[in-house]
Order: sequence, then C-alpha cells, then structure tokens
Amino acid sequence: MTPESRTFDPAGLLRVLDGRYADVRQEIRAVMRRPEFAPVVALPTAEYRERVLGWARALAAEGLTAPGFPERYGGRGDPGANVAGFESVAFGDLSLLVKFGVQFGLWGGAVQQLGTERHHERYLRATASLQLAGCFAMTEAGHGSDAQELQTTATYDPAAGEFVIVTPADEARKEYIGNAACHGRMAAVFAQLIVAGENHGVHCLVVELRDEQGTVGEGIRIEDCGEKMGLNGVDNGRIWFEHVRVPREALLNRYGDVDADGVYSSPIESAGRRFFTMLGTLVQGRVCISGASVSAAKTALTIAVRYGLRRRQFGPEPGHEVPILDYRTHQRRLMPPLATSYALHFAQAELVDRFDAVMRRDDAPERERRELESLAAGMKATASWHAAHTIQTCRECCGGAGYMSVNRFAALRADTDIFTTFEGDNTVLMMLLAKGLLTDYAADFGELNPVGTVTFVAGQAVETVIERLFARQIVQVIGDFVSRGDDDDLLEPDDQLDLFRWREGHITASAAQRFKRGLDDGHEPFEVFRAVQNHAVSVAHAHMATVLLESFQRAVAGCQDEDLRDVLKLLCDLYALADLESDRAFFMEHGRLAGPRCKALTREVNRLCNEARLCAGALVDAFGIPDEVIGAPIGLSDAGAAAD
Amino acid sequence: MTPESRTFDPAGLLRVLDGRYADVRQEIRAVMRRPEFAPVVALPTAEYRERVLGWARALAAEGLTAPGFPERYGGRGDPGANVAGFESVAFGDLSLLVKFGVQFGLWGGAVQQLGTERHHERYLRATASLQLAGCFAMTEAGHGSDAQELQTTATYDPAAGEFVIVTPADEARKEYIGNAACHGRMAAVFAQLIVAGENHGVHCLVVELRDEQGTVGEGIRIEDCGEKMGLNGVDNGRIWFEHVRVPREALLNRYGDVDADGVYSSPIESAGRRFFTMLGTLVQGRVCISGASVSAAKTALTIAVRYGLRRRQFGPEPGHEVPILDYRTHQRRLMPPLATSYALHFAQAELVDRFDAVMRRDDAPERERRELESLAAGMKATASWHAAHTIQTCRECCGGAGYMSVNRFAALRADTDIFTTFEGDNTVLMMLLAKGLLTDYAADFGELNPVGTVTFVAGQAVETVIERLFARQIVQVIGDFVSRGDDDDLLEPDDQLDLFRWREGHITASAAQRFKRGLDDGHEPFEVFRAVQNHAVSVAHAHMATVLLESFQRAVAGCQDEDLRDVLKLLCDLYALADLESDRAFFMEHGRLAGPRCKALTREVNRLCNEARLCAGALVDAFGIPDEVIGAPIGLSDAGAAAD
Repeated sequence: MTPESRTFDPAGLLRVLDGRYADVRQEIRAVMRRPEFAPVVALPTAEYRERVLGWARALAAEGLTAPGFPERYGGRGDPGANVAGFESVAFGDLSLLVKFGVQFGLWGGAVQQLGTERHHERYLRATASLQLAGCFAMTEAGHGSDAQELQTTATYDPAAGEFVIVTPADEARKEYIGNAACHGRMAAVFAQLIVAGENHGVHCLVVELRDEQGTVGEGIRIEDCGEKMGLNGVDNGRIWFEHVRVPREALLNRYGDVDADGVYSSPIESAGRRFFTMLGTLVQGRVCISGASVSAAKTALTIAVRYGLRRRQFGPEPGHEVPILDYRTHQRRLMPPLATSYALHFAQAELVDRFDAVMRRDDAPERERRELESLAAGMKATASWHAAHTIQTCRECCGGAGYMSVNRFAALRADTDIFTTFEGDNTVLMMLLAKGLLTDYAADFGELNPVGTVTFVAGQAVETVIERLFARQIVQVIGDFVSRGDDDDLLEPDDQLDLFRWREGHITASAAQRFKRGLDDGHEPFEVFRAVQNHAVSVAHAHMATVLLESFQRAVAGCQDEDLRDVLKLLCDLYALADLESDRAFFMEHGRLAGPRCKALTREVNRLCNEARLCAGALVDAFGIPDEVIGAPIGLSDAGAAAD
Repeated sequence: MTPESRTFDPAGLLRVLDGRYADVRQEIRAVMRRPEFAPVVALPTAEYRERVLGWARALAAEGLTAPGFPERYGGRGDPGANVAGFESVAFGDLSLLVKFGVQFGLWGGAVQQLGTERHHERYLRATASLQLAGCFAMTEAGHGSDAQELQTTATYDPAAGEFVIVTPADEARKEYIGNAACHGRMAAVFAQLIVAGENHGVHCLVVELRDEQGTVGEGIRIEDCGEKMGLNGVDNGRIWFEHVRVPREALLNRYGDVDADGVYSSPIESAGRRFFTMLGTLVQGRVCISGASVSAAKTALTIAVRYGLRRRQFGPEPGHEVPILDYRTHQRRLMPPLATSYALHFAQAELVDRFDAVMRRDDAPERERRELESLAAGMKATASWHAAHTIQTCRECCGGAGYMSVNRFAALRADTDIFTTFEGDNTVLMMLLAKGLLTDYAADFGELNPVGTVTFVAGQAVETVIERLFARQIVQVIGDFVSRGDDDDLLEPDDQLDLFRWREGHITASAAQRFKRGLDDGHEPFEVFRAVQNHAVSVAHAHMATVLLESFQRAVAGCQDEDLRDVLKLLCDLYALADLESDRAFFMEHGRLAGPRCKALTREVNRLCNEARLCAGALVDAFGIPDEVIGAPIGLSDAGAAAD
C-alpha cells in the first residue's frame, strides 16, 4: 500500500524507450506541445478536416514529415526515423496521424517504392512539403483483403501512348480512400494492367484526381464516404474511373513497364511473385500502424493509471478511502496491459531496426524481406488488437469520467478501432504469418516431424496413452510439489522462454500435421485450409508471444542501469507469466504444466501486479507524453494536475 | 457449405422469444418503423437532443412509456411489460433508450418506488406523458459506486418546515445527470438527510430545477457535461446546490419521513438497511440495462451475420469466392456470441418474470427481494460486458464497411460502452453478487466445508498429493480414451450442468475458505478482502454462467415445436461448450477434465459453429428487428436488401 515505494528515474527509462531515435521523437513532441495542437472535441467534420490539414502542414513546415525520403527530396534518408516519427505523432490526434500516414507513407511511399527516378523527381519533394496531396487507391468495395483480385483495369492504348483506367462494375469502385473526398490532388491507383490483351496483374499508376483549382478530372467521380466511427478529420472517399486516360509514364514502373512500342517487361517473371514483391515494398504501413498502436495504448494507460492512483473509493472504514489502483481487480485489469505495452515497445523497436536495415539496401536477400513482412504482419495485428482491448479496459477503469470526450478515450477508442482492419485485416494478417511459419516448418523438416504428435493418439492402446501422456505430467507434478512455495523458477528467463518456444513448436507441428493429414486423406486443399484455419491462427499468436518475450528479455539484459533493469525485469516477468496464465489450458492439455504449477502462476501474477502498482506512476511517466498532448484533465502528470 | 440447409421458421422462433410480452414488443416495433425514427448520423449535439426528445414524446403519445405505472397514472400496472418495452426500444437509437430510461425509469421510478401517494398524484401522470421531465440525481463526482458516502446534504429547518439542500464541496456536485443540461424540470436528489443534527443517511427529495419557462431555480447551478463518447442525444449535466430550499413534502417518504414537528421516523430502523432497501426498489434500472444490452448485441449480430453471409472473399479458385461466414475463424468469432445472446435472452426473460412477481406484491419476502437484486446485478454486468465485446467483434467482422457510421456499429459501440459503468460499475456489481453468494454459502455450511480443499494441499506428502489429485484425473483420462470419437455425452444437458455447478461450487468453497483463512490468520478484514477480491469476482462469473445454462436448458425443454427445439438445443450446446472450452484451464487445474477431453470440447465447438452457420440467417431473422430500425445498408434482411 506504500505509494510508489519502488523508485527509479522515469527520465532514465524514457531515454531507454526513446532509443536511437530520441532526436526525432523529441522534435515531434516539441511541436505537438504547441497550443494549436491541443486535442479537439466534437468539431464539425468539415472544420475538423481543415484543422487536420493545417496540423499536417505545420509538421511539414518543420521538415518532420518524411525522414524516410532521400535527402534531396526533403527527407533524411532514414527509414527508421520515419517510423519513430510516426510513433510520436500517434500520441496526439489520430486523424492527424492517419492523414500523415496517407500523405507521406502511403501515397509518398507508393511513389518512392514503386516508382522510379522520373516519379521521384516529379512528386517526392512536393509530397514531403504537402504542396501536393495524394491518395493511395488500392482497396475496392468488392476486394479489400484479396487485393490480387482487384477489378479496376488500366489498358494500354498503343496508338495514344496512354493507359485507359476503368471501373468495370460498381463493386470495383475504390473505397475508403483517405484524402480522396477533399484534399487529394493525385492518386496512386492500383489496377490490373492489360497490355495487348494480356493481363499482367495488379500495377500502380499515378492519376490526377483534381487540378490545382480542385476541379475533379473528366471521367472521374468522387463521393464522400461520410461519417465514420472515428478519424473524421480524414476525408475518405470513393472513386470511380470512366475511361480516364493517363500518359504511359504515369505507370510506377520499378517492377513492370511498358515501352514506347507497347511492349511489357518486368524484372520479375511470375505475375504472382511480382504482385507480392510490390506489396512487400509497402511494408512500412504495417510497421507504422504497429508502432502507432503501441503509442495509443500508452496514452490510454497513462490516463487510466494516473486516474487509478488519484481516484479513491471505498476503504477499510468511512473517511479512509483508498486509491482504486490498490484493488486487485483494478491492478489485474491495468498492470498486465501495461507490461504488454512495454513488451510491444521493445519488439517494435527491433522491428524498426530490421525494417531500417532492409530498406537501406536494394539487394537485401529475399528471405530477409519475407521475414520482415511476416513479422510486420504479426506485429501490426498483435499491437492493434492490444490497443483496442487496452483502450477499452482503460475507459472502463475510469468509469463515467472515462466516458467524457474531454478525457480522450472517446477519440482513442473510435479512432484506433479501424487499426485492426486497415493495412490488412488482422485475422488475414495472422494467416499470412502462419503460412510463412508453416512453410518454414515444412522446409526445415522435409516431412512432418513426430514432435507434437502426442495429441494424435486415437486408436492406440490405453496403456500406451497413459504412459506417453502422463509420464511427463507426473514428473512435472512431483517437481511442482517438491519445489512448492518457491515459485522463483517461474522468474527464470530461460525457463519462461522454454515454455513459450515449446508452445510455439508444438502448435506449429500439430497444425502442419493436420494440413498434411487432410491432404493425405484426399480432401480438397481449400477444405483442409478451412478446417485448419483457426489452428493456424494460433500458430501465429504463439509465435508473436515468443517474439515479444525474446525482445523484452534482450532489452532487460541490455539495460545498463541496475534500477531500471530491475523494473524492466519485473515488467518482463509480468508479461511472460500473465501470458502463460491466460494460456495455461494449452499447457495442461498437453501435459506441460500441471494444475498446481498453474495456480502458482496465478499467485505470481497477483504479486507482480502489486509490485508494478508500486511504481505505476513512474512507469507511465516514462512514456514521455507531454501533458499538452495528453489533454485529458484526469490524465495529467502530477505537475500538470497541480498547475491545473 | 450448403447455405441455410438447416431450416426452421424464424417467425415461430420470434414468437418464442417475444414470449408473454409479445404485444408491447410489437406495438413498439410498429411505432419505431415510422420514417421519423430512422437512425441518425452525426447530428449536431443540440439538434440531436431535440430529436431524441421528440422521439420520446412520440412514444408517450402512443401511451407506450410507462406500462409499469399504475393504470390511473397512465400506465398498465405491469412491471414486466415495462422492461419488455424498454428492451424493444433498445433496438433503435440508444440515446432515445437512455432518455426514455432516465425519464420514465429513473425519475419516474424514484417517485413511484420511494414516494407515496402525494408524490404519485402530483408527478406520475405528467411524467408518463412527458409533460414533466425529470432527472435522477444520485451520482456525485466524488462518489459513484460508493453511494452511501454521498456528500450532498438535506438539512431540515423546523422553523420554515423546509429542507435546505447543499453541495458542500466541489466533488459533491451531482455528475453525469441525464436530462439535467437542458430538459429536466424536476430532479430526484439523493442527499444525507439531517434532522435535528442527526444524519439519517441517504434519502431522496424532489427538487424543482427549472420553472415552466426553463429558468433555473435560485441557488442551483447547472453545467452541461458536454460531449461524450456516445449518447450525445442525452443532455447530461452537473448540478450544484447552494442552500436550495424545498418544502418538507418534497421528501420521498416511503422509507423515512419527517413530521410537521420535525421528528424523523422510518419503518426500517437501521440506516444501512434502510439505504439498501431504498436502493433495492430501484432494481428496475439494472433489469432494464441488462435487457437493453441483449437487444444491442442482437442488433449487432443481425448486421454482422447478414454481412458474413453476403460478403465473399477468397475461395478455392479465382471467381469462386466464398461467403466469409464459411471461414472457421469467422464462425468462431460470431457463432458463440450468437449462442450466448440466446442464452442471455432466456435468462433475461426469467429475470423479468421474477422482477414482475416481486414488484407486484408489497409483501414479497426480503430473501426474494435480495435474490432478485443479486441476480439483476449479475445479469446487468454479464449482459453489458457481452454487448460491448459482441458489438466490437461484429464491427471487426464487417471490416471497413463496419467502420462507416451508416452501418450502425459506430453508434452501437459508443452508446453501449457506458452500460458497463452506469447503473453500477460491473466489477462492483459482480462483487455485490459474490458477497451474496458467499454469505449464503457460509449460512448453508455453518463452517467451511472440506469440498474443494483439494487445492490446498501444501505440506502433504507427495504420494498423497498424487493419489488425491490424480486418482480422479487418471480415471477421467481412461474414460476419455475409451469413449474417444464419441463426444455425444458432451451434449447431455445434465452432464453440462454438472460441470457448471461443480465449477461454481468449487470456486465458491475455495473463495470462502480463503476469506476464513485470512481472518483466522489475523489479517485486517479489508486486506483479506483486497487479496480475495479477484477470486470473489470469479465466484460471480461462475454463478452467472450456471444461471444462463439453467435458463437456456429450461427454454429448450419447454419448447413445444420440435424443429425449434432442435435449433435451440444446438445453440444451448454451443453456449455451454464454448463456455467450458474458454474456462477449461480451471477444470484441468482441478482435475475435473483431462486434456483429451478438453480437446474434444474444442472439436465439438468447431462442429457446432458450423451447424449454427447453416441456419445463421434465420437465427438473426428471429430477433425480429425491422429493417427500418436496423437501418444499416449492409444489415438488411434479404427482402430489405433486394428492395434497396
């Protein structure tokens, strides 16, 4: 009950968290503390959109919009700093974040990654300065996740040397396109590229939507998507193309080109591989949304933890009310997500390092790129689900005060909700990751390994079953009781990691086995896929849990300051044990943990929650979100609350 | 994959669901289909508040607002119909629902339940017709959950024969009060009643906030709460009282009165018991929010299931895309909440019956009243959490389309979010329920029963441990393998119920034991409470799961139509097994289910999800939500979609 009895220097922890991109993070924090960036509540949509555009322009004026662009186009040639900047913008208004992402990341990124020098020269500088606003027009009403099946066509007309872009059916309209309803002048439009009657698959072309006066071009129809659950400061629209002509040079031609004679060529022969290579270069979007999700969760936790420390209710006797964060139910709701946010922070930092390394070299091996894409997919899904759940929990933990818009949860919740959908639906992304993991597994083992087959013992003699299944479990139980009362080994990093890796290996092996058995039994591949799909998503979840623990453990081991290392170790333990506790059914089902051991897990999580509560204020201070950016009266720092 | 291959008549199932209150439900559906009730998107707050008031007046004009009031005051003397009507209003705009609840349920309910004839005569008719709008001013900024500690005072001035109402500190202001910012003329104000220097605890008085011209009374200060996450059609406000005088007769005096001589009297001697008796009469609010939560979940599921049946993506080959509800991940997300919504529906129907029975008799035994209050607390928490999770899942399952406000999830999500907080914070309500269950347990057993103590075996010899813990488990495992491939007994209602009841009994016994041990060990009661709190909440969860299963099984058994009974049995099985699956760790930890049995659970849930998918369209049609009320273009019935 002693408040904040475990002390450490939050500023020191902030330096650890800011890491190698401390400079850009601090620059953005400084700009966003200005009064004109104060959070807004219930601005009418039209006004809100203009406000957001103004904010984006203010960031552009400071040269903070596109550190990932080459220096000669107004950037810093630093892909990692680009993501770090985005993560910092994400502490503020999330319509600004998404506007920023659409303009500099998606539109700018498409030009940078899919275009060649002629496009860079023409568009990148104007994009970074926001002189030229652009859209990223991939999704269609009928095809979101399955982008390879987009229906928009771009047919080459050799006589005119132009492409003709057509929306062949209403469901092929471009849908939910940010920047399209009002501000976008250009669009990177994805379409099936048809040359001399042959479809070369989805490519991207630059199309002028509006001229300098804002007049929509001939053959183009744009409709406002109207009100959304959140992000109403972003002007999403729908676009139809009715025989819209663009010059041959409008094709972003890094991975496929049409020459003056109307001959198609590409450095990548397979249309499928070409499509996925093109998509792969757009990995930045997922890395960014992952980081932004972590930032949004940090904002919510900062507000809820500070409220939980100040708000008192009930107590041992009238007049002695206690802070609600002293209640175990409250600790149980807030401390594990706080620990997981730290875990995600360190995993995100490593993801950004890998992203930075890959993006800096044109010749990064394909396997490295593929692994980056898989990891980005898994991180985006994991982090955005975490943000959604955490923000919701934080809102509930602030009761009625949390429901008032001024306290930020209304916007945080509504704005981040779509993070689980855009830049790839989370479930689809987890399938993508699972596919990679299962493919690797098959490659590593040639044929399926008997590891993990203890789950498929039907038909064997009962004796064998008990022998197999229980030999391990009984040993475990005896071990549990011999060491009972001493739960210290739950805190051994290697033991924790063993459990995480064992789980991942076991789930992967058994999912792979199911696939194989389904195919061996002569079922249609798609039917086998449908039947194993849920199991495959579990593979991805288990993998991401391991990734997070590994990153967190490396961060703990690498921390030089002893006090900070202790507090990070505490959070790492809480992350690991809370995860194991929530999934203990799996470990018991497979004889890896016995009941008493699982109960020890629960005790230990309770204890760690209480430990974390003792430094909870400092743990959220260390996120370094300025009071001016937090905005919420209930969520200000002690200094800010005193001044208020 | 055969669509809707399991057929039944949705209209027949609707009759089962509408039950004894079919008339009032149909009357309200008919009114709400009128064009003026069409869902609104992004109305400016001021306009939205007037629209909602207009809707409430339209319902009042039809005599549909207060079936729970006595007939002579414009009601029907039917408490159950009152809740059923509220449940039907909940299919539409939820600001209307809450405005409706504040006016007729909270303000009207306080007058009806806490007042006596003089108050009924003066206020009820004008309340039912909405000639007189009122507020329910209980919550203060500093005291929400702990209402017994409210700080507002009402001090009797015998010379004037008046009460003087005072807000003694800023944190004692009335907070989040619906109807206060604009429309409320009267308020039922809860305050510590002080007579001749003695505090008799919290009582309720009627205070005129505004006169007929809308001028705020002297000494009263009202502030608009401003924008909220949702429910912006309701005008919430804050109220301060600075020596506001009301006549002696303003005291709602059913449970405590002050006579002309300034002498306090009450039929209930203990101030604590009096307070909880007064609160108890307001149980209707929780019963109503529970029912409304189920309705909101039904609306969300109707939209998401219809979208899942129509939306196609990916497939065995290009051009053969399949409905996304054919994917197991999608089924797994939507079918269990659909089954749980049915479970909650039947539990709610039984709750309403009990509520109706208790409210109809003044002399209902205290135990019956207490049980009703406990059940209402548990149902409100269970149903509102279910609604929050289900609506969120449904939004995600509709992807970008789900994010567009026109498709209703934006409002559903934001409006219901506060359901987990108002009418009692869910965690606090679960504690309330747990307290009742643990008290009953102690009363039943005198001292603590050894049942369930298998979890407290520290210090015993290892041999004994294994013997105790595993004897049962090994028998179970052998049984599992002998019967393997035949999971039919998972579908035996009695076996399901045994597992639910065993879990509840075990958790209750062990929580009670922990309380006792903590106290026996000499710890402070409040510290013991803090340590066991989380465990106690689990008692409440386990109890509610049993309540739901029992209700659902009774509904299945009582269904006369064979086809309908089959389909209800399917949903009941899915509810039961999905619950067991999600909590299987507990059963394994305590040796009640072994691993292979748990895996059989997972297989069976998969199979049942697929079965439910085969009639999913009819299952949501049976909720009977008119297309005009659904509003969402992606969520219309087949007939509505064809006409669109």
